[in-house]
Amino acid sequence: MATGALPPSGDLVLTPGRPRPKKGIGASRGGFGAGEDKSPARPAPSGFRLNALRLPPRAPPARRRSAASLGGCVGREFEEKMPAVRMLQHVVGQLLLGPACGCRTSALPARSLGASPWQIPANANFHSASFSETDQPRVLITGGLGQLGVGLANFLRKRFGKDNVILSDIRKPPDHIFQSGPCIYSDILDYKNLREIVVNNGITWLFHYSALLSAVGEANVSLAKAVNITGLHNVLDVAVEHGLRLFVPSTIGAFGPTSPQDPTPDLCVQRPRTIYGVSKVHAELMGEYYHYRYGLDFRCLRYPGIISADSQPGGGTTDYAVQIFHDAVKNGKFECNLKPSTRLPMMYIDDCLRATLEVMEAPAESLSMRTYNINAMSFTPEELAQEVHKHIPEFQITYNVDSARQAIADGWPVSLDDSNARKDWKWKHDFDLPELVTTMLNFHGSDTRIAQAN
Amino acid sequence: MATGALPPSGDLVLTPGRPRPKKGIGASRGGFGAGEDKSPARPAPSGFRLNALRLPPRAPPARRRSAASLGGCVGREFEEKMPAVRMLQHVVGQLLLGPACGCRTSALPARSLGASPWQIPANANFHSASFSETDQPRVLITGGLGQLGVGLANFLRKRFGKDNVILSDIRKPPDHIFQSGPCIYSDILDYKNLREIVVNNGITWLFHYSALLSAVGEANVSLAKAVNITGLHNVLDVAVEHGLRLFVPSTIGAFGPTSPQDPTPDLCVQRPRTIYGVSKVHAELMGEYYHYRYGLDFRCLRYPGIISADSQPGGGTTDYAVQIFHDAVKNGKFECNLKPSTRLPMMYIDDCLRATLEVMEAPAESLSMRTYNINAMSFTPEELAQEVHKHIPEFQITYNVDSARQAIADGWPVSLDDSNARKDWKWKHDFDLPELVTTMLNFHGSDTRIAQAN
Repeated sequence: MATGALPPSGDLVLTPGRPRPKKGIGASRGGFGAGEDKSPARPAPSGFRLNALRLPPRAPPARRRSAASLGGCVGREFEEKMPAVRMLQHVVGQLLLGPACGCRTSALPARSLGASPWQIPANANFHSASFSETDQPRVLITGGLGQLGVGLANFLRKRFGKDNVILSDIRKPPDHIFQSGPCIYSDILDYKNLREIVVNNGITWLFHYSALLSAVGEANVSLAKAVNITGLHNVLDVAVEHGLRLFVPSTIGAFGPTSPQDPTPDLCVQRPRTIYGVSKVHAELMGEYYHYRYGLDFRCLRYPGIISADSQPGGGTTDYAVQIFHDAVKNGKFECNLKPSTRLPMMYIDDCLRATLEVMEAPAESLSMRTYNINAMSFTPEELAQEVHKHIPEFQITYNVDSARQAIADGWPVSLDDSNARKDWKWKHDFDLPELVTTMLNFHGSDTRIAQAN
Repeated sequence: MATGALPPSGDLVLTPGRPRPKKGIGASRGGFGAGEDKSPARPAPSGFRLNALRLPPRAPPARRRSAASLGGCVGREFEEKMPAVRMLQHVVGQLLLGPACGCRTSALPARSLGASPWQIPANANFHSASFSETDQPRVLITGGLGQLGVGLANFLRKRFGKDNVILSDIRKPPDHIFQSGPCIYSDILDYKNLREIVVNNGITWLFHYSALLSAVGEANVSLAKAVNITGLHNVLDVAVEHGLRLFVPSTIGAFGPTSPQDPTPDLCVQRPRTIYGVSKVHAELMGEYYHYRYGLDFRCLRYPGIISADSQPGGGTTDYAVQIFHDAVKNGKFECNLKPSTRLPMMYIDDCLRATLEVMEAPAESLSMRTYNINAMSFTPEELAQEVHKHIPEFQITYNVDSARQAIADGWPVSLDDSNARKDWKWKHDFDLPELVTTMLNFHGSDTRIAQAN
């Protein structure tokens, strides 16, 4: 497998052309929101024909430098306005000069670092020329109020320090989350907002959790296209412009009925039939394209259904496997919207968050690919119910199948082949079905006891 | 292979939510352009959580009905503003009533059919309630001034009549094209413009040829994202809203270095490393998603490199195989930008256009899939030069390899497995290498003689 279809070049420009920021709505693994951009549209090029190829630039590291200091002489305006032939001559000239010329100009737009209109945590450092270097990453999590964001923030804060991890969303966080560490408004559909946050907070790692999941995406295709596709484009561009290491979760939903299902390998047919799946295939391919084209440090895991105790799922097809524990403890029964025999790959949230940090910390040279399957267990509703039954003998499950969710699930993998992840960066899951059920029931059981005590 | 992962439902709404039309730039297989949309943004929903799934609607046939007559009581605004739970209740109610209720309301936005500010061909019928039914399709070709559009228009006009085929682009056509039949301004990035053209002209078939190809796409990633992705979204939405049969060309560029290369099957790994390839995979998947989700009659062929005599290629990696004939006749020599051994799938334009019409005319029940490979011949620059040499003994080829184009070509198929197309709708190519070379040299030879006579 060739690892670089497009060679590095003379770095005429640092950034890929930026799409216009658009009015719109951002959402997370369960969270949504809106922002508005009032920037005037740039004049649009028209009527030109370009038969010559401009060689791909590769982004120089831009971490921990202020955007203002990077206002380069050769930028996006140049990219758009320069006639093609002159542009090609310029690139070829740069190429022939080679790296020895030292002319690695960048094209980040200059901007003043004034006060931000957004809510900035009191303990968030402003990014400036005096910003100190440190080995710790400065982390931004988008869509942070969905199923995984708060858990990831807590997990990362233990490793990197509370103030180095900023949770963001378009929704207002509950008080206990707001008080637990930096928490900020960000709208992935507002490119300028996103860029300001990255610059002001010296962000070096970005975990992009904003997305509409499978079931909720089918209920609002238009919003799913905006958030999952346009929003992703914004995040990719910000990440390239500022040299971020970028994590984007993909999913078992990125496969479809024509994919091998048991196990599903990393590389295979991917023709999903949900807008969520289609947009996640696009995210994988765009991220890898930006990696080969611009050197973006893009890392992506295909998550199974994630089971979490202290956060709600965000509208996915595997949500039943979270809800069942809550209902079992509270009511002793559960109505399942998938057939009893529907076998899907699942993972406990602690394994998921650890995998996410491990792939982000893996040395680049250990990664033979940029999008990995991760697998833990696969079970059916019937098997899960049997395991619950061992703890709660009176537990009863009934089935009221939702045909749309069932159709989605039927096109998904039964298990994922994650041998590449296990080989390349030593992925290993801790939780199988028995440990999962014990852990989840302990959590909900103690919750319930407390609730009953009150 | 399941053919409908998502079942038809009670049709709460006809249309998928529409993305906001955006300011921007449209381009074709060689053609570009700009348009501006001044519509106010709709208020953005925020802060809601949807755990329930709204079942997918399926678009009822809307052909040959005026948009004004379809202004339904349940529409996009409803889709966006109705709280999730009420929406679900509504859908479930519709579902339980079933088709017997006859309540298949549609949600096309009402609009007045006033005079258009755009250039409308004098012979283009305005679409109205009195519009007569006919068996002939009414065809719109986007990106019509690229390599293939004019040839396709000529080909289709012979079959369907001159006035039933409208060529469109954002560029001003040369006089001879303008005078050859209906020719109109359309900008795929201006959704309203596109919709007005479809409605005013009673369009029933749309051939979507606007795209930035592989090499030119790498030279302007931002524009390629806008045209190839945002533009495609607009076209898909217009096609669903108006019940169009939609053709979108895909490409050998939709495969990559991890795809099987010789031959490349219809269903396999697709991880391309150009923005062109990434956007064409997205087009395939989105078109198929709209087919399963909304019943869109989406049809797609993966074109090899297309060799045309009377039109210029549009910035692809296989352009050399067009240019070589021109240079051979004019100068007796050619400098090739790919290595002599680079074997790629190629097709003469007549075969390509015939395949395109054949797949569009194929009965829906004959199509076992919606995206087909088509194959004709595969050759290397060296083999092509040898064949040219048989006609022009003094012809000389030299090589000056463009490393970026070579990298793209090295990731592409050597040949396509088109057995499904040959089985399902009886695809068969006419032109192999010897016929191709004879035909191309005859064309350029006569051209040159005329030019010399003048």
